[in-house]
Amino acid sequence: MSNLDILQLRLQALDFHGILIPSTDEYLSEWTAPHSRRLQWATGFRGSVGLAIAVRARAALFVDSRYTLEARQQVVPNTIEVLAASDESRFSWLANNMAPSERLAIDPRLQSHGEIERWLSFARARGISVIPLQTNPIDELWGVARPPSSSATIYDYATHFAGASAAEKCAQLQEHMAKAGQEVHLLADPEDVAWLLNVRTNDSHTNPSPDRNIVPIPLSRAIVESKGPVRWFTDSGRIEPALAARLRGHVETVPSSSFDSSLESCSKGRVVGCNLMRTPHRYAEIVITAGTLTDDPFVAHRRWVKHPNEIERAREGHYQDGQAVIRLLAWVQSTVKQRSVTELEVSAKLAEFRSELPGYRGISMPPMSASGPSGALPHYVPSEHSNRVLNDHPVYWLDSGGQYHGCSTDNTVCICVSTPEPRHIRAHTLVVKGFIALTRARFPAGLHSTQLDTLARQFLWREGLDYGHATGHGVGNYMNIHEGPVIRKIPGLPLAGPIEAGMIITNEPAYYAPDDFGIRIESHLVTVPSEQSGFLEFETLSRLPIDPRLIEQSLLTYEELSWLVRYH
Amino acid sequence: MSNLDILQLRLQALDFHGILIPSTDEYLSEWTAPHSRRLQWATGFRGSVGLAIAVRARAALFVDSRYTLEARQQVVPNTIEVLAASDESRFSWLANNMAPSERLAIDPRLQSHGEIERWLSFARARGISVIPLQTNPIDELWGVARPPSSSATIYDYATHFAGASAAEKCAQLQEHMAKAGQEVHLLADPEDVAWLLNVRTNDSHTNPSPDRNIVPIPLSRAIVESKGPVRWFTDSGRIEPALAARLRGHVETVPSSSFDSSLESCSKGRVVGCNLMRTPHRYAEIVITAGTLTDDPFVAHRRWVKHPNEIERAREGHYQDGQAVIRLLAWVQSTVKQRSVTELEVSAKLAEFRSELPGYRGISMPPMSASGPSGALPHYVPSEHSNRVLNDHPVYWLDSGGQYHGCSTDNTVCICVSTPEPRHIRAHTLVVKGFIALTRARFPAGLHSTQLDTLARQFLWREGLDYGHATGHGVGNYMNIHEGPVIRKIPGLPLAGPIEAGMIITNEPAYYAPDDFGIRIESHLVTVPSEQSGFLEFETLSRLPIDPRLIEQSLLTYEELSWLVRYH
Repeated sequence: MSNLDILQLRLQALDFHGILIPSTDEYLSEWTAPHSRRLQWATGFRGSVGLAIAVRARAALFVDSRYTLEARQQVVPNTIEVLAASDESRFSWLANNMAPSERLAIDPRLQSHGEIERWLSFARARGISVIPLQTNPIDELWGVARPPSSSATIYDYATHFAGASAAEKCAQLQEHMAKAGQEVHLLADPEDVAWLLNVRTNDSHTNPSPDRNIVPIPLSRAIVESKGPVRWFTDSGRIEPALAARLRGHVETVPSSSFDSSLESCSKGRVVGCNLMRTPHRYAEIVITAGTLTDDPFVAHRRWVKHPNEIERAREGHYQDGQAVIRLLAWVQSTVKQRSVTELEVSAKLAEFRSELPGYRGISMPPMSASGPSGALPHYVPSEHSNRVLNDHPVYWLDSGGQYHGCSTDNTVCICVSTPEPRHIRAHTLVVKGFIALTRARFPAGLHSTQLDTLARQFLWREGLDYGHATGHGVGNYMNIHEGPVIRKIPGLPLAGPIEAGMIITNEPAYYAPDDFGIRIESHLVTVPSEQSGFLEFETLSRLPIDPRLIEQSLLTYEELSWLVRYH
Repeated sequence: MSNLDILQLRLQALDFHGILIPSTDEYLSEWTAPHSRRLQWATGFRGSVGLAIAVRARAALFVDSRYTLEARQQVVPNTIEVLAASDESRFSWLANNMAPSERLAIDPRLQSHGEIERWLSFARARGISVIPLQTNPIDELWGVARPPSSSATIYDYATHFAGASAAEKCAQLQEHMAKAGQEVHLLADPEDVAWLLNVRTNDSHTNPSPDRNIVPIPLSRAIVESKGPVRWFTDSGRIEPALAARLRGHVETVPSSSFDSSLESCSKGRVVGCNLMRTPHRYAEIVITAGTLTDDPFVAHRRWVKHPNEIERAREGHYQDGQAVIRLLAWVQSTVKQRSVTELEVSAKLAEFRSELPGYRGISMPPMSASGPSGALPHYVPSEHSNRVLNDHPVYWLDSGGQYHGCSTDNTVCICVSTPEPRHIRAHTLVVKGFIALTRARFPAGLHSTQLDTLARQFLWREGLDYGHATGHGVGNYMNIHEGPVIRKIPGLPLAGPIEAGMIITNEPAYYAPDDFGIRIESHLVTVPSEQSGFLEFETLSRLPIDPRLIEQSLLTYEELSWLVRYH
C-alpha cells in the first residue's frame, strides 16, 4: 500500500473528499528540508516545487515544465496524473474531481495568504467547502519514518560580515513601526529573522552530494513590539552560548510551539505589520481575526539594501570566488585538448578549487554544468544519467556559486570548447549586448526593478528571440542566493521593488535553442550613486571573463566594444 | 456665510466630526460634470483633481503640484489650507485634526473600493470611526443652485466606427463569464458601457470656451447576466429612437435610481465579476455582502484592443487631423515672421482649422499651447492671464486633439520659432532618441505595458534627466483620450496591462527645464504583428513632423538617422 493509498483512506475517515499538498513548508521555504517534504512523502516526487491534489480515488501532481519528465518517472505509474502547474489546470482538475458541497482539506500553514485566498475564492464559486486543517494528516501518518527537523547549531553572525548590529536593525524597525502606526510587527519569513537578529546556521540538507549545499538560515519566526524584547520563536537548544549571551536582554527565545497563541494574544485590538506575501495564511488569519493587519515588507526591503561593510565583504568574496572559476576555465580549456571531460567532472573540479579558498563554507546551489543540448534547459543540473562530454559540443555554460561568510555568489560563465558556428556566435553576441546594456544602465534611484528588464532583452527581441526566466535577482549575504529585487518582465511580483543604492543584483540574460545549445552569462552588480544627483548606476562585483571567440564584433557598437575592452 | 460654513454646521447637526470631499463623481469620471462638482461647491477650487477634508472648524484641500497656485487663489483665504496630494500629507492632517472615536463621513459612491479601503485602514489604526453616507449632505445643501445632470441625447454609435456590433461584444462577454465561472458581470465604468453597447453622447461641459470640448460618454452603468437582456441603468428619455429600436430585445433600460437594489438582488449568492479599480466602494460592498466578488477588468482590456475597422478609421482620422496641424505649423512659421503670435491665438487657430475637417465633432482636450517657460509645465493650458507671445522664446510645443467619429486624437508637436540654443537642441535630440527607440521597439506579444517605458527614457537618464509623467497611454475610439494600457514607470497601475496587437497607444517622451523651456513630442502608434512569430511592433498613425532644426545629428546613430529620414 502506497503512502498515497494510506492518505486517501485517512481522508475518508476524516470525512474529507480531497486535500491540497504543496511542496512548501510552514516557512514557505524555497528549499524544503527533508522533515517537511510532505509532497514527496505522498507522491514520490523529489523536485523542489510542485503541488498535488488528492481526492479519495485519484490524484494529480502539478509541476512546471522543467520537472514534467522526472515527475512522471518518480510517481507511482497510473495512480497520479502529472499536469502543468497553471492555475487553470489546477482549478479545472479540481472542478472535474470534486462535486459541490464536498469538503477539501487545506493546511493553511503551508501556503501564503494570497495563494490560499485564490483557492478559497475558486472553491466558493464552485460550492466546494474548504476546511483549514489544525493538524496535517500527513504528519500523523508519517510517524517515525519522518526525518527529524534540523538540530544544527545557530550561531552569531558577526557584525564584520552583517554590517549593522542586530540592536541597530531592531531600533530601525521599531522607529519605522512608530511612523507607520504599527504596534506589532510579525516576521514570518526566516530570512527576515536571520537578517534582523544576525544569526545563521549551517544546514546542508538539500543536496546529499559530497559538495555541501549550505542553507545558512535557521527556520524561525519573530514578533517585534513597539517596546520590550524581540520574541524569537526557535529551538533554544540549538543556540550557541556566545549568541545566547549577545541576545540576552533584547531578544527572548520562545518555543515555536507557542507561536500561534503568542501571535493571537499580542494581535488583539492592535495594528500588526507583516510581509503578507511571505506570511502563511494561518498566521495572517490569526492577525486579521484578532486585530488589524497591514501589509508591510519593510524588513525584506531593508535586507535587500546592503551595508557598506557587506558590500566590501562581497567585493572581496567575488574577487576570490572569481579566481576559482578562472582557474577552472583554464583547467577545462587545457584538459579538453587532451581528453574527454564530462559535465559532472567540471562541477566536482570547481567544488575542489573553491574548497581551497579561505572562508569557503560550501556551494550555494547545485551547479548547473551544461554542454550543448543540456544548455538549452535553463534549470539543467547534470546527473549520472544525463552527464554529457564537453568535447562533443562547441558551447558550454556553468552556473554555480559558493557560500562565504559575508558573501554568497551565483555566477555563470559561457565558453566555447571547440570551434563555434555562426549561430552560436550570433546568439552569444546578442546576449552580451543585453548584458552590457544592463551593466551600463543609469537610472533614477527608486526605479522599480522590473523597469530594467527590457534593456537586457531588446537585442534578442529585435530578432524574435527571448528567454523565459528573470534577467536578475537580489542576492543575500550568506543567505539565500535568491532575494529581491527581481529584474523581470512580469510586474507585481512579491520580490520586485524599488532599486536603491547598495543593492546586489545579478545580471543574467540568456538564450536557449531547444535540443541544440544554450547561452547564459551572469555577473553580480552593486548599485552605486552616479555623478548625476538622484541617479544610480552599477558596479560589477564579479571577476569573470566573456569569451571573445563567441563575439561577432560587427554587431557591437563602438561604445559596447570599448566597454568590453575595459571590462577585461 | 460660505458653502463650507454651511456644510460644517450641517456636519455638526448630523453628529459627524469630519467629511471627505473628493473631486470624483459616482462614475469615477476623469472630467466631472458641473452637476457633480461637489469639491468646487464646498471649496471654490475649479481644478480637475483634488480632495478636501473638512472638520467642524477647519478644512484642507489636497491637490497635486500643478494646481497648488491656482487652488490658493480659488479657495476662500484663511479658511482652507492647500496641501500636497500625497497619502502621507492627507493621513497626517487627518490624524492631527480628528481624535480617536470621532466620526468621519465618507461618500462610498465617490471613490473606488481600493481608495476607500486605504482610508478605512488608516482610520481604524487611529481609532477614528468611518461612517459611509447614504446621502451626501452636499447634495442636500446644494439645492436648486445645483446644475442639472446632462440631458444630451444618447445615440447609436454605428458599427462602421465601433468595429464590432454590441450583440457580438455582449456574446463575447457572456462567453468569458461562463469560462470564468461568473454569473453576473457589473459594469460600473461608463466607458465600458459605452463600448459594450455602442452608444455615445455629445456632452460638452468641461470647457466653457467657444471650442466644444466633447465628452462622448454617457454616464451610466450596466449589469450583464449569463442569459437574458443586459440591464442598462440610464435615463431612457435621453435615448434617441433609432438606438431604442436597435437595443430592443437584448438591452433593457432601467432608471439609475434602482441600480443599488438591482445590484443587490442579482448578486445574492452569486459570483459577480467587476473591474474593481473602476468600481465605487459602495457597489463593491453591495456585491461582497450579497455574493462573491471577482476582480475582472475583462471589458476594459477588450476595449483597449481595437477592431480592424476601428484601426482603419483611426488611420483616416489621423491623416486628416495631421493636415490641420501641419497647416497650423505653416501658419505659425509664416505669421511669427510678420507679427507677434500668442499661445491662445494658436489654440484658436487650430480649432478653426480642425473645424473645417469633415466629421470633426470638437476638441478632445483643452489645448496645451506652451511657449518657452510655459512649456516647462507639463500640464500647462494658457489663460488670458498667462498667455505668452511665441516670438519671445525659441521653443514652442502644442499638445492638442480632435474628436471625430471613429477617431480621437491627442498629439504634440514641438518646433523652434526663433534660433534655438545648444541646450534646446541637445534636450530635444535626447527626447527624439527615446521617441525613436519606442517607435522602433519590437517585443513579445503580451508584454506588460510598463516594460516599454525605459526605452523612451534611457538617453535622458544617461545625462541625469527625466520627465515626471507617463511615456504613453491607450486612446479611446470617440471616447476618453486616456485609457489603458499605460506605458509608465510605476508598475501595478490599474491602466497598465499586457500589450496585444491592435492597441492604439501614444508615444510622448519629454523634458522640462524649470522656468526655461520644455520639449514634448507625441504621436499615436498602433501595435501590429511583426515578422517574427509571437512578436509585435508599432505602426505610426500620426502624420506629424519632427523639427530638424532641433536635432543634433552627431548624437544620433546611423539607424536613428535613417529612421528619421524614412519617417518624414
